[in-house]
Amino acid sequence: MPPVAKLSINQNRLQSQIDELALISENAPPVVTRILFSEADLRARAFVKKLAADAGLHLRQDVVGNIFVRWAGQNPDLPAVATGSHMDAIPNAGKFDGVVGVLGAMEAIRALQRAGLHPKRSIELIIFTAEEPTRFGLGCIGSRLLAGTLSPEKAALLKDRDGTTLESWRRQVGWADGDLGSVRLPRHRYSAFVELHIEQGPLLDREKTPIGIVEKIAAPSTLRLELTGVGGHAGAVLMPERHDALLAGAEIALAVEKAALTSGSADTVATTGIFRIEPGAVNSVPCQAHLEIDLRDTEARTRDSALAQIERSVREICRRRGVTSDLERVATDPPVICDPKLVSLIAQTCSTLGVPAKRMISRAYHDSSFMAQVCPTAMIFIPCRKGYSHRPDEYSSPEQIKTGATVLAHTLASLCSAD
Amino acid sequence: MPPVAKLSINQNRLQSQIDELALISENAPPVVTRILFSEADLRARAFVKKLAADAGLHLRQDVVGNIFVRWAGQNPDLPAVATGSHMDAIPNAGKFDGVVGVLGAMEAIRALQRAGLHPKRSIELIIFTAEEPTRFGLGCIGSRLLAGTLSPEKAALLKDRDGTTLESWRRQVGWADGDLGSVRLPRHRYSAFVELHIEQGPLLDREKTPIGIVEKIAAPSTLRLELTGVGGHAGAVLMPERHDALLAGAEIALAVEKAALTSGSADTVATTGIFRIEPGAVNSVPCQAHLEIDLRDTEARTRDSALAQIERSVREICRRRGVTSDLERVATDPPVICDPKLVSLIAQTCSTLGVPAKRMISRAYHDSSFMAQVCPTAMIFIPCRKGYSHRPDEYSSPEQIKTGATVLAHTLASLCSAD
Repeated sequence: MPPVAKLSINQNRLQSQIDELALISENAPPVVTRILFSEADLRARAFVKKLAADAGLHLRQDVVGNIFVRWAGQNPDLPAVATGSHMDAIPNAGKFDGVVGVLGAMEAIRALQRAGLHPKRSIELIIFTAEEPTRFGLGCIGSRLLAGTLSPEKAALLKDRDGTTLESWRRQVGWADGDLGSVRLPRHRYSAFVELHIEQGPLLDREKTPIGIVEKIAAPSTLRLELTGVGGHAGAVLMPERHDALLAGAEIALAVEKAALTSGSADTVATTGIFRIEPGAVNSVPCQAHLEIDLRDTEARTRDSALAQIERSVREICRRRGVTSDLERVATDPPVICDPKLVSLIAQTCSTLGVPAKRMISRAYHDSSFMAQVCPTAMIFIPCRKGYSHRPDEYSSPEQIKTGATVLAHTLASLCSAD
Repeated sequence: MPPVAKLSINQNRLQSQIDELALISENAPPVVTRILFSEADLRARAFVKKLAADAGLHLRQDVVGNIFVRWAGQNPDLPAVATGSHMDAIPNAGKFDGVVGVLGAMEAIRALQRAGLHPKRSIELIIFTAEEPTRFGLGCIGSRLLAGTLSPEKAALLKDRDGTTLESWRRQVGWADGDLGSVRLPRHRYSAFVELHIEQGPLLDREKTPIGIVEKIAAPSTLRLELTGVGGHAGAVLMPERHDALLAGAEIALAVEKAALTSGSADTVATTGIFRIEPGAVNSVPCQAHLEIDLRDTEARTRDSALAQIERSVREICRRRGVTSDLERVATDPPVICDPKLVSLIAQTCSTLGVPAKRMISRAYHDSSFMAQVCPTAMIFIPCRKGYSHRPDEYSSPEQIKTGATVLAHTLASLCSAD
């Protein structure tokens, strides 16, 4: 491992690359929207590939679009050290979520190069496809396929709002060189995975702690619900004759909130994040409602009990209102315990660098949730202002990002030197 | 007036024209969607203009797109007899709403021509612009401007979802020959207006009565509501810290329903027909909700009391949830009493023809609501199956439509012969 003092992150370059990537968006600045397979998504990929090529790194892309940027080690047959995150962004998001872990890792690798490190193990930066669930209603598609927790057959048939499948999309954009089964990682490909990310919560910002070390990632569930009522003219159908799909959906959204509030754990959060109705005309009784619900907890037990409560409410509300429901559990993932040795290594690194750090829980889920099934995994969090994320005013300072990238660089240096 | 027996409606031609117009739609059959200024709207206009030209009738269009098809009378200086309806259709609608009153009236005029009538007064078929509120959130834009109940200044500034104004749209489609103030009708332009329409309610169908004669049109109100909460990551923002705009909107939609159910009148109906949220991602707390609410009653008193109840609920819910609201009354129109003499004339016509008819209330509002402020007005209803309307399976039989057009033709014949 090179002396600590030598690993210097180029804060200005990193920040200007973050700013440049933010302009690759489906919306005007400061709004960042980069949905899987959009032109912005494809341009962001080209942007990061150019950075990797400029740094003399080797590039590979699998058939679902996961990008692997490799700095070959002296012993390339040893399992590599991996880092990385995502670049896709939900509608009306900000520029730091995911991006800090991609461009920060790229700069960390350049810092190691500048310091004259000759890594024993190879270092790989992974840019995961579709961490965000925007297009297909399922997040972490790339890392789920890498870990083998999503079957290639099920992935191929994922459909977007227009009915176009993932399989059809990836062929359209030219990722057709092999089937989705080829994405799954072989055993012992990586010795460790460390993801740098903004906290997306208020704790580090509130406590002015520059680094969070994630010990546990909350267990997420996603539900998709189709409600079918009876439409009609808003003037002519009298109230007792109605079977309004919007009103059933409204009651269900409130029941989702209540299930989280009464789960018995302050850590349970539940959100109806998507709510669309048909036909969506002011003078027409809504005949259809489409809801997507996100439920998370640090404990599988309270999460599952809230999930069951929501399912009971859906049945009761729909029966009472004469609305039919089609409820699907899109994903129910287990909570993740990060690798204790890796957590200790990051803590030790922070201590050596004199950077205050706290151990914490990630309430958001990440590609790390799935990489944890492939190899020892941990996460490094940096503060973001007021915990705001998934909105245009999401913000981490250049200094905070630099600190995160520095801790990541030193952690990678240790990991790639280990036997 | 020509002998009753001679007025024969060509049922097959009328039906085939209705079927042909239904194919001019933004969606595949049987779904009809024709939104103001869409290509389908413009093509429907061309379709009906060609029918009018084929019938040798004179065409005029005003600068908001209202179309006037005129059969000149022997005394063209007398106030004309008017009939007509609309051709625009809300998303996912059917093919009879409005269209029966346009194509049925066209066939009624042809029947009078075939019978050799030489009308004393001119007969005008009016095809109104935007009876449906889809694009601008306000219905009956054409007839409101004709009646002068909507100011040209306010109309010009109406904005659609993309922020484009009515003024900008009408110039884009080439209706720029004059300002919107020129739309308003001069006094005494018409001696009477009679609109043929499907009931959009179940009564005639249930009672197997072929004709309804409208005595009263319900009083409609439209509210537009913008809710602004605080967004954030669905995993990271704990429940007590949330100000979820969707949940405030859900409570308000339920309060709208309750206000109608508890108004004290079984005739009060209230509908949240539009409900959109931002950003609309499953893992993001909704920060914004847009609702459009439609409230109607046959009595202004109970309608206004329900309106006040809804406004109180919006304030209470938003205060409790820490969500800000911007509530606008887009329209609050008075209930309409149809002209008693015209109602009697239609009743007498039905009786002479041996067609059973019942006097009734229109719960839907129509261009007639505004034409009633210009001249004596009444409406002729025909049954539609189960009262279904604003949906693709809206249905009236060719025979039912023929009966309606026959009653209209005889009514027009009487009116255009009157001194």
